[in-house]
Amino acid sequence: MQRTQFGDMYCSIARTMHIAGEPWSLLIVRNAMVGTTRFEDHQRMLGISRKVLTERLNWLVEHGIFERRQYSERPPRDDYVLTDKGQELADILFAISAWGDRWTAGEAGPPALFRHRTCGELTHAEIRCAHCGEPLHSQDVEVTAGPGADPATLAG
Amino acid sequence: MQRTQFGDMYCSIARTMHIAGEPWSLLIVRNAMVGTTRFEDHQRMLGISRKVLTERLNWLVEHGIFERRQYSERPPRDDYVLTDKGQELADILFAISAWGDRWTAGEAGPPALFRHRTCGELTHAEIRCAHCGEPLHSQDVEVTAGPGADPATLAG
Repeated sequence: MQRTQFGDMYCSIARTMHIAGEPWSLLIVRNAMVGTTRFEDHQRMLGISRKVLTERLNWLVEHGIFERRQYSERPPRDDYVLTDKGQELADILFAISAWGDRWTAGEAGPPALFRHRTCGELTHAEIRCAHCGEPLHSQDVEVTAGPGADPATLAG
Repeated sequence: MQRTQFGDMYCSIARTMHIAGEPWSLLIVRNAMVGTTRFEDHQRMLGISRKVLTERLNWLVEHGIFERRQYSERPPRDDYVLTDKGQELADILFAISAWGDRWTAGEAGPPALFRHRTCGELTHAEIRCAHCGEPLHSQDVEVTAGPGADPATLAG
């Protein structure tokens, strides 16, 4: 992996990109979100090489996004199932999709529609403040160093 | 760019990754979110080469994330300012940060803290249903083909 530099940064965005920012990885998580669990199905949906898919799945298992569950002993075959960490990563995909639908879909409209079973309606994701519930816009947020900031920054 | 294949997919996640998924690009947007507008400041904060930063900024301008505003005529120098499209992309960074804080920060705690000026509180992002306002979890969402889906899929 070439992303180690990002994993070492004092930044939760960089660290997330390190684990899951490679586009194929996010698309594997996307597939999992719609129920895909098997290597062959991921490969067919993505049209990537077995080698790349194997690397990506191993990486995502290693970083706790998927866990393997054996469904066949002979030959040995595993389902790849999202962990809790992976499920929460999948949730971010809705925020990414909402932006992509708004800014890249054009007149053709969104490639995918999302129905929220909780309310039954077609919907999209909104990013909201965990405290007040209002939309969280970057213009309205003040960013300061946290306890896990770069010690060099904190000392500065 | 090697990401053209993602830009051509019938998927708003892939298209978003095509435009903004390269880690440096997201970190440039992160810097912009905290007020960085100038090439030299981005370079200092990221520690990347002028060549890579120039490429990334040009790409982000080309894709409408930043616009250039000249602040010096001689020598010609530009501020890089987030467009509306870029501001909305920046909002997604809060969702990414929240995941990274939760799953990668460990005992050190979050590298950065976010105060929502609207309510005055330290907060983090939640991804919620635009219709009912409840959290939008991948397990509770049914995904179907939208009007902009791959025609091959729609015909199938």
